[in-house]
Amino acid sequence: MLTAEIHVTLKDLVLDPQGTTLKRSLEALGFTGVAEVRMGKYIQVRFDSDDRKAVERQVDEMCQKILSNPVIEQYRFTIREGQ
Amino acid sequence: MLTAEIHVTLKDLVLDPQGTTLKRSLEALGFTGVAEVRMGKYIQVRFDSDDRKAVERQVDEMCQKILSNPVIEQYRFTIREGQ
Repeated sequence: MLTAEIHVTLKDLVLDPQGTTLKRSLEALGFTGVAEVRMGKYIQVRFDSDDRKAVERQVDEMCQKILSNPVIEQYRFTIREGQ
Repeated sequence: MLTAEIHVTLKDLVLDPQGTTLKRSLEALGFTGVAEVRMGKYIQVRFDSDDRKAVERQVDEMCQKILSNPVIEQYRFTIREGQ
């Protein structure tokens, strides 16, 4: 069994309204010194397979087709053994 | 400048309807061998401060107060130098 850990984040130049809202909430709660907040997705995909090469290819294709929006988002992933 | 990288995930025993929906979409697109999909949040918080201990305390408090729902979610974070 292999598990892919995928991070999908907004590209650096893309505004992040959700992050800005969260930053304001943190300030309203009294947290000081926060310069910026960026929100992203963290997706874990577990595979029955043990074929690392094939899983890597599949995950890359998933990221491009459905898990990210390549116009505004970037992705990176690692594959590890186990659940 | 310090940056906190925070992962918020559902506890293992909590059902993940968003992950289940995504798994079905992947199968509908022809991806085979997917055993499970779990969706989580990945939050980056940048601090003006260089006081690692103080930032660690702040991030832990943020996670408990606003970034996660401790009833159903768990969190982990790392602090690194730079943006």
